[in-house]
Amino acid sequence: MERLVVVGGGAAGMSAASVAKRREPSLDVVVLEAGDHISFSACGIPYWIGGTVEGSSERLVVRSAKEARERGLEVRMRTRAVDVDPDAHEITVETEEGTEMLEYGTLCLAPGVEAVNPFDPLDGVHTIRHLDDGIRLRDALAADPPEHACVVGGGFVGVEMAEAFVEQGWSTTLVHSRETLLNDIVAPSLGETVNERVRAAGVDLVLGQRAEELEGRDQVEAVRTGEERVEADLVLLAIGARPRNDLAKQAGCELGPAGAVTVDDGMRTGVPDVFACGDCVAFEHRITGEPTFLPLALHANRSGRIAGENVVGGDERFPGVLGTAATKFEDLEVAATGLDVEQARETGFEPATETITSVTRAGYFPGSSEVDVRLVVDQGSQRVLGAQLVGGPGTAKRVDTVAAAIWMGATASDLEAMDLAYAPPFGPTWDPVAIAGRLSGRAARR
Amino acid sequence: MERLVVVGGGAAGMSAASVAKRREPSLDVVVLEAGDHISFSACGIPYWIGGTVEGSSERLVVRSAKEARERGLEVRMRTRAVDVDPDAHEITVETEEGTEMLEYGTLCLAPGVEAVNPFDPLDGVHTIRHLDDGIRLRDALAADPPEHACVVGGGFVGVEMAEAFVEQGWSTTLVHSRETLLNDIVAPSLGETVNERVRAAGVDLVLGQRAEELEGRDQVEAVRTGEERVEADLVLLAIGARPRNDLAKQAGCELGPAGAVTVDDGMRTGVPDVFACGDCVAFEHRITGEPTFLPLALHANRSGRIAGENVVGGDERFPGVLGTAATKFEDLEVAATGLDVEQARETGFEPATETITSVTRAGYFPGSSEVDVRLVVDQGSQRVLGAQLVGGPGTAKRVDTVAAAIWMGATASDLEAMDLAYAPPFGPTWDPVAIAGRLSGRAARR
Repeated sequence: MERLVVVGGGAAGMSAASVAKRREPSLDVVVLEAGDHISFSACGIPYWIGGTVEGSSERLVVRSAKEARERGLEVRMRTRAVDVDPDAHEITVETEEGTEMLEYGTLCLAPGVEAVNPFDPLDGVHTIRHLDDGIRLRDALAADPPEHACVVGGGFVGVEMAEAFVEQGWSTTLVHSRETLLNDIVAPSLGETVNERVRAAGVDLVLGQRAEELEGRDQVEAVRTGEERVEADLVLLAIGARPRNDLAKQAGCELGPAGAVTVDDGMRTGVPDVFACGDCVAFEHRITGEPTFLPLALHANRSGRIAGENVVGGDERFPGVLGTAATKFEDLEVAATGLDVEQARETGFEPATETITSVTRAGYFPGSSEVDVRLVVDQGSQRVLGAQLVGGPGTAKRVDTVAAAIWMGATASDLEAMDLAYAPPFGPTWDPVAIAGRLSGRAARR
Repeated sequence: MERLVVVGGGAAGMSAASVAKRREPSLDVVVLEAGDHISFSACGIPYWIGGTVEGSSERLVVRSAKEARERGLEVRMRTRAVDVDPDAHEITVETEEGTEMLEYGTLCLAPGVEAVNPFDPLDGVHTIRHLDDGIRLRDALAADPPEHACVVGGGFVGVEMAEAFVEQGWSTTLVHSRETLLNDIVAPSLGETVNERVRAAGVDLVLGQRAEELEGRDQVEAVRTGEERVEADLVLLAIGARPRNDLAKQAGCELGPAGAVTVDDGMRTGVPDVFACGDCVAFEHRITGEPTFLPLALHANRSGRIAGENVVGGDERFPGVLGTAATKFEDLEVAATGLDVEQARETGFEPATETITSVTRAGYFPGSSEVDVRLVVDQGSQRVLGAQLVGGPGTAKRVDTVAAAIWMGATASDLEAMDLAYAPPFGPTWDPVAIAGRLSGRAARR
C-alpha cells in the first residue's frame, strides 16, 4: 500500500512528509496532527509571550496546513493516533467525529514530547511546549496579568520565560532544584554569572529547592517547596519534557533513555515499516556513542528529513549530536557543546578543564564585554571534548567554532592554531576560543 | 653574547621580546623602535579616527614602553636599525644623537610593513599603517576638517576609513581600481552588496579606475584617475602595504612573495642567528602550501611568540594561515577564509561554488537580517576550500565555523552534519553555514 502515515505535524513530521512527497510524488502522504498547528517554532514561544516577537502566533508558524496541502500532503488537524497494529499495518485515529482505521504502507512516528507536569490540574498553571499552550498562556496573561508569577525550572525554557515575565514588569519568582541556573549546559562556576544577571533583572531566585506541591482549590495560589511557600497566581512549569511514546510502545518499538524511541541511524525503529524521528527518539552522541534524549529543533528537523529520504528508499544517515545549545537572558549569552567533566569521566576519558576570561570585542571597542570560556580536554589524546561559554553579545555563536572542531576530532592545540577571524568589532586578536585552547591544552598536559 | 636584539616594537617584535625574556630572564633583550609607539592596534586606527573609539591614542596601545621596561626589556624609541653585519653579529642603529654599533647574539627582525605610496609628498595626503600616522591624521582633521575627502583603495582600510569620514558628515569619495569593494576577500557578486551599502551611506564611489596622479603644489587638490578628476583637500591612501625588508636583504635573507622575508616554520631566516616574524615575513598557507604575504594581526602576534620561544631554544612551529579576515561597514559584516575559485583552480583543485542566502537570526526575531554565504568546495575530494560571508550583525564570526572546519580538513557534508547551535536570537534552525555546506556539496557532486 503506497501510503505514508506520519504521526505528528511538528518540525520532524512535516520534514519527513515533505521530503518523502518531494522524492516520490506518487506517494500518498497523510499527516496526523493532534493539535491546532503544524510546523511551529517552539523555541520562539517565550519571545512571543514576552513581546520581543510582535504580532499574532502565526509569526511562529513555519508552514501552515494550507501550504502543506498545496504541496500535495494530506494534513488532518485535531486528529489523534490512538492505536496501531503493526502486523496489519493499521492505525486507529480519533477525531471529534469519532474513530477511524487507516492503513499504511509505512508509518513514521513523530509525535514529539510533552511537558512534564506531575501536579493535579489547577487554573493558572501553564506549560509551553506547544504553540497551542503558548497561545493559551498569552491569552490568559492578556486577560488578567498576574500579581505574582512563578516559574518552576531553571533550564532554557524557565530562564527564557522568567525574562519574558520581568520584561512585562511582573513580580516573578523562579524556583529551581539546583543551586545554579542552566545547570544542564554550564558548570556551577559559569552558572553563577547567569544567577547574578537573572537576579539583577528583578527575578526572585529560590534555588536548591524542588517544587513539591501547587496550592489552591481551582486557581493556583502558591508553589510549595520543602522549605518555602512562593505565592503565585500564575505558574509556568518548565521542568522538562518527555517523549510521547505510547504508539511506539504499542507497535513494539524498543525504548531507550528517558523512554525515547530507539532508532538506527536511518531512523528505523526495528519494527517493519515503522520509522520514528524528531524529539521523541534517542540520537547517538557523537563523542560517547550512547543514545541520548535531546529534544532540540535542529535534530528534530534533520532526523525528519532523513526519515523522509529513507521512507522512499534512500540511505541517509543521522550523523550524531554533540548537544550543542544556546540561549540568552537579556544580553547575557550562554552556550555549550559536547561533554562536561563528569560526563567525560563517565565515558572513560581523563578530562582536564580550564576556564578563561576574555572579551567579545577588542577591549577598546564600544560594546566589548567579558566572556568566560570553559573547555574540557582529554589528557590522553588532547582531544577537545566540550565547551561552555557565558558572556555578552557575540558569545553564543562562538560555540560553533568549538563544535566544528570537536566534530572533526580537534585537539586543544588545533583550536589554538586555527586561523580565526580578527577585527576590533568582533573580538580580540586571539579569539577567546583560541585562548581557551591554549590554556586548557596546557592544563591537560600537566 | 647573550643579547637578543629585536628590530621593531610592534605586536610581533614585542611578543618575541617578551616571550624570550620570560623564558630566559638572564637574556639581555633590546627592542629598537623607529617610531613613537610600541604594541599598538593598527586595526583600531580607523575606528579611533572615526570617533567610534573615544579618548586619546593611548586607547589603542596594548603595552607602553614603560610597562615593557618594567618587565626587564630595554626598549629604545626613535631608534632606527640601518645596517647589519651578520658575520660580525653587529647592527648599526641611528638615533637623533647619532649612530651606534650594537652587538647581538640573536637578531629578530620584526620591522613590519609600510603603506604603499607611489606619489610625491603633498600636504593633506595620509596613510595610517602606524599609530604615529593615525595621530597625525586625526590632528589634521581636528584642526581643519576637509571639504572633500578622498579615500584611494577599496580594501579593508579604505572601506573602514570611508566609514569614518562619512560618519563625521564629510563629503567623501572612494576611488578603487576594481569594480567591487573588498575584492581581495569577496567575489564580485558579494562585493556588490558592499558597494550598495557604502554608496547608500553617502560615499561617492569611483570604481574600476586607478588613482594615477595627485594634483596640487604643496597641498593636495585632487586625485586624478585616467578618466576622472576627484577634487580633494584630504587624501587617504589605502592601496596596500609592503614588507620592510631592507635589513633582511642586507643580512642576506631570502625574500619571497611581495618581498616578504622567507622563514621556516620556526621563524628562522636561514642566516645564522637571524629570526624574522610579523607582518614582514611570508607565512605558509595551510591549503596551498605556498608562502603568502598576509600582514594580519593574529599572524604577527603568533609568529612573534614562536620566534620568542625559538630564540631561547624552543621548537615551536607556525601552523600556517588560511587568510581568514573580517571587517564591517556600518552594520554590514564581511568575512572570508580560505580560497576562492580562482586560487583553488591555480592550486590544482577542481572547485565548485554555491552562494546561499539565509538569515542571521530566526526570521521572526527582531534584528534578523540577510546573510549570503559563498562556499568553495573541491569536486574531487569534497573538501571545503573557502568561504565568504556578507550580511547583517552576527555574520562575521560565523566564518570561524568554516575556518575551523577547513583547518581540520572537513568536507561539505561534514559542514552540513555538524551540530551547530540554534536559538531564535542567534540564527535559523539550520545555520547559514550548514545550509551552504549542503548546497555547495550538492553543486560539487554534479
